[in-house]
Amino acid sequence: MSGHAIDANLVLVRHGQSRWNLENRFTGWIDVDLTPQGIAEAHSAGRQIREAGIEFDAAWTSVLQRAIHTLWIILDEIKAPWLPVGRDWRLNERHYGALQGLNKAETAAEHGEQQVHIWRRSYDIPPPPLDSDHPDHPRFDRRYAHTPADALPAAESLKLTLERVLPWWESVAAPALRDGRRLLVAAHGNSIRAIVKHLESISDEEIVDLNIPTGMPLAFALDAELRVDERGYLAGEEEAAAAAAAVAAQGRAS
Amino acid sequence: MSGHAIDANLVLVRHGQSRWNLENRFTGWIDVDLTPQGIAEAHSAGRQIREAGIEFDAAWTSVLQRAIHTLWIILDEIKAPWLPVGRDWRLNERHYGALQGLNKAETAAEHGEQQVHIWRRSYDIPPPPLDSDHPDHPRFDRRYAHTPADALPAAESLKLTLERVLPWWESVAAPALRDGRRLLVAAHGNSIRAIVKHLESISDEEIVDLNIPTGMPLAFALDAELRVDERGYLAGEEEAAAAAAAVAAQGRAS
Repeated sequence: MSGHAIDANLVLVRHGQSRWNLENRFTGWIDVDLTPQGIAEAHSAGRQIREAGIEFDAAWTSVLQRAIHTLWIILDEIKAPWLPVGRDWRLNERHYGALQGLNKAETAAEHGEQQVHIWRRSYDIPPPPLDSDHPDHPRFDRRYAHTPADALPAAESLKLTLERVLPWWESVAAPALRDGRRLLVAAHGNSIRAIVKHLESISDEEIVDLNIPTGMPLAFALDAELRVDERGYLAGEEEAAAAAAAVAAQGRAS
Repeated sequence: MSGHAIDANLVLVRHGQSRWNLENRFTGWIDVDLTPQGIAEAHSAGRQIREAGIEFDAAWTSVLQRAIHTLWIILDEIKAPWLPVGRDWRLNERHYGALQGLNKAETAAEHGEQQVHIWRRSYDIPPPPLDSDHPDHPRFDRRYAHTPADALPAAESLKLTLERVLPWWESVAAPALRDGRRLLVAAHGNSIRAIVKHLESISDEEIVDLNIPTGMPLAFALDAELRVDERGYLAGEEEAAAAAAAVAAQGRAS
């Protein structure tokens, strides 16, 4: 089913399947790469954008390779690898703290099913933090060397994720959009949720049930005040809803 | 042969073989992609940088996909796809004017061997310009939409190439290097020649005989005043010289 044509100035894409999505491990800021299926999802996203005829003036992504590689594949598909690309850690996935690297069974065994459900599905309860001496702590990672140490999370709820994504939105995306530029953003389930919550004024209660399907470009036509004129998945709402339901049913760790 | 270890803060890499290198056509600003051999050369360049243990704070490339793809491959090889990447048309290959798309035989038939040699090897004689209504003229290309029309070339000598590369060097690279940042630049034969000419104070006469081999990282240790403390190909000088001689012998169009 083909979607309604939207005169988009913003397109959001969640990266395709990563190695740890496949193994159902909490990934967060661990920098795992796409699987072959994830690569195929990225090509599909790129083709959808090309077929919709949407053009961009700039692209943004996180500093995690599963999002960066998704973006590169899309840029090739839309024949625009020359577009300016910004990388920002504030578009990273939610930091899953001490759960990072654990699979669903391990986490449930250690913390109990119900507690895991709370961490996954509450708006403002962060998982247990990563110890500050843990080798995976972002302060040991060269890519965050220029980020103030007190800004680097050791565990995030969706609320905390939103609180670092929105300053990116306000200082980078919003001024560019108001300036008439059209943006492509390749990011993660929770950083995209944060942007969508903000744009569509979704409540704290409702956002936890919003699932962003992977590799399905979500297009917005925003007006001069950045209000949503139109929005929709390029693949069509039904196909996107089915894909989102599949993501939710798998309980795919992110 | 392994090169002497250099504490590099600048590494320049010429992209590997493109489709038109292979067909020996003048490429210039035509946006052809790498061949499988060119992709292999980019991986080799990346491995050389990784094995030399050189790290960067930022990377720069042109707006042509053969250089961008070379950079992406290198970034993956050095496990740093998250590095900030700037794209700048001023790092593009020399614009080959009306010769773009012609192969060596076609050009010689049309203009004579000697004239072609002059265009290829003189410092300051540009080839015949592309007609301003030619569909390949950069003014019709979306990627140059934000570049002032009078800055866009329709044909360049090496001298003219240098005259638009150096403002990039002075306004972008030099301040970053003085600030202690280490830069990786993936670009083209003639934009790299322009940078090397400037750094090493090579004369107008000598620069036309300097051949930059493809896929061979050229490392510089620059001091605080950006004078060359040390320089060398990571593969070693002998191997680089052999590769450069091969490029020269082929008369490979660029």
